[in-house]
Amino acid sequence: MPTLPTLLITMGDAAGIGPELLARAWLTPELHTLCQPLLVGSVARLRASLSGMGAAVEVRQLGSVADAHWSKTSPTTPLECWEPAGAPDVAEVIWGRPDARAGQAAHDYLVAAIDVCLARTAHGIVTAPLHKGSLHAAKLPYPGHTEILAERTGTQRFAMMLYGAGVGVAHVTLHLALRDVFTHLSTERIYETIELVAETMERIDGRPARIGVFGLNPHAGDGGLFGDEEQRLIAPAVVAARKAGIEVTGPWPSDTLFGRARRGEFNGLVALYHDQGHIGMKLLAGYQAVNLSLGLPILRTSVAHGTAFDIAGQFHADPTSLLEAVRVAARLARTCPPPGHPLT
Amino acid sequence: MPTLPTLLITMGDAAGIGPELLARAWLTPELHTLCQPLLVGSVARLRASLSGMGAAVEVRQLGSVADAHWSKTSPTTPLECWEPAGAPDVAEVIWGRPDARAGQAAHDYLVAAIDVCLARTAHGIVTAPLHKGSLHAAKLPYPGHTEILAERTGTQRFAMMLYGAGVGVAHVTLHLALRDVFTHLSTERIYETIELVAETMERIDGRPARIGVFGLNPHAGDGGLFGDEEQRLIAPAVVAARKAGIEVTGPWPSDTLFGRARRGEFNGLVALYHDQGHIGMKLLAGYQAVNLSLGLPILRTSVAHGTAFDIAGQFHADPTSLLEAVRVAARLARTCPPPGHPLT
Repeated sequence: MPTLPTLLITMGDAAGIGPELLARAWLTPELHTLCQPLLVGSVARLRASLSGMGAAVEVRQLGSVADAHWSKTSPTTPLECWEPAGAPDVAEVIWGRPDARAGQAAHDYLVAAIDVCLARTAHGIVTAPLHKGSLHAAKLPYPGHTEILAERTGTQRFAMMLYGAGVGVAHVTLHLALRDVFTHLSTERIYETIELVAETMERIDGRPARIGVFGLNPHAGDGGLFGDEEQRLIAPAVVAARKAGIEVTGPWPSDTLFGRARRGEFNGLVALYHDQGHIGMKLLAGYQAVNLSLGLPILRTSVAHGTAFDIAGQFHADPTSLLEAVRVAARLARTCPPPGHPLT
Repeated sequence: MPTLPTLLITMGDAAGIGPELLARAWLTPELHTLCQPLLVGSVARLRASLSGMGAAVEVRQLGSVADAHWSKTSPTTPLECWEPAGAPDVAEVIWGRPDARAGQAAHDYLVAAIDVCLARTAHGIVTAPLHKGSLHAAKLPYPGHTEILAERTGTQRFAMMLYGAGVGVAHVTLHLALRDVFTHLSTERIYETIELVAETMERIDGRPARIGVFGLNPHAGDGGLFGDEEQRLIAPAVVAARKAGIEVTGPWPSDTLFGRARRGEFNGLVALYHDQGHIGMKLLAGYQAVNLSLGLPILRTSVAHGTAFDIAGQFHADPTSLLEAVRVAARLARTCPPPGHPLT
């Protein structure tokens, strides 16, 4: 068994910047010091990307994960790429356009990687971006990776976290119309998300998390002047989590929490809806932000950006977020059950 | 008539950090290079603040604005303070506690300043923070300055802007429970806010504004997957504003706009609800952020923070935001009708 964590890096949408990000990450020496990488996706798209960026390195096509060398790789050793059997051929897909084949293939790469991790044959998954238009064209109307991961692993209690600049913000609700947030918020879900953040940030930082919970309304409701969710739903979850020994406070006014986290007061935040967490984290960490799936039985991190169809196939996409996702996955892998050890 | 703009600086809640901010601003040489200041509030609280911070300068009490010298002031000349007749005596108010007298007085200072500006006797108003608890105790249940200003000036079409780091973000809705935002959004209100931002940013920067409008839902609705307000309400307002010659685009995903503004793509943003604009601006500009009232017949800027009851009366509050509010007001005053010239 190798010393470095074994990470499957999935290509995501083959019409987007995923293929070139995987190629560029492989050509980055740091990747090979962080993990033992195995790329999951289209061999043809990887070769096209390498050729497009003028890199002379080869791609070694694996028939299955069992064929992986899991040995010392480097920017000059052939890219190890597993193209799961049954995934559509995406060699002819046009860069930068939604395509049912690319959508189905992105789904298939991910599901194959999930199954490998569930079988404890690799430590975890790092994902390049999906495109919802392609998924939709393939009649796979998932809003994102998180929902596919939760479904395939049979997980009920999960959350999406953005992590960057030493701060992790998890979301109680995610891919919903804002007007639907209200019926999806409950004290129980808020409590679960606090718990997930506490577990994750303790794993990342090696010490108990310090968590702040957002209010839903302006000024966190200003003592009940604007909305009652703070007293009715949020405060009871915070009280219960404190009773369970978690260092958590709130609900706090939304516009103060990221600043307080930046100053070190919190390392974990609990946002109630997508944009509440995303607006701040994208400003705080930019391309250094990565996406973590909390609550899954497997380890998964991701870039925090999209497929960038506008620049796909130009081969100058920036792998910063992908490399950061690998760094965070490698750090979290220290506290994962190692491959070959079944989940308890 | 003095060369510098004449600005009324209102004390806000006398139990908060307002009095010490006014005193500290007066003691800052830059204030007197930016404007001809006149403080509006409690003479006793100013004296207490000066004494608390160990400053030996005097306070000159004015019976009315007509008594103002409007002459060269400096950190060593007496603080000119107008205490409007009829405002409650707040000398005995306890620092850091909501108090009906302080709430009523804060309201009265503001209303007196508004009337002076409506009479074109001063260029504009810079406000220190109110406390809603004190207003409430005084049976004046306004959520903030903006609503008082709109009511007193009889303004229907107005918006609150946060301005900082060269970017102004205005809000279509403001002090509402999040669940009430949906019934208050309309194409007309969004259009009006775009127009107000265009006017204001052109006045501040001296060239046509470049405006981005937020989406309401995650990923700006992702083509209708999550919510329909983007197509139904927001896009038509953007189209109409473009037809009217305004350089505006959107709706854009919320988590991308502040980053794009920071990189110079936009100088004006239109947010649909309070926290959408506030989360990003507080991160982008911190204490450099100031608050502008758009659409009023008078000029008004404000600190973008609260009364800080937790540190009021300790006399070490930071006047950065107040001074920045004075800077922005002084810049806007260049394009205001000068005192003595009636509104057209």
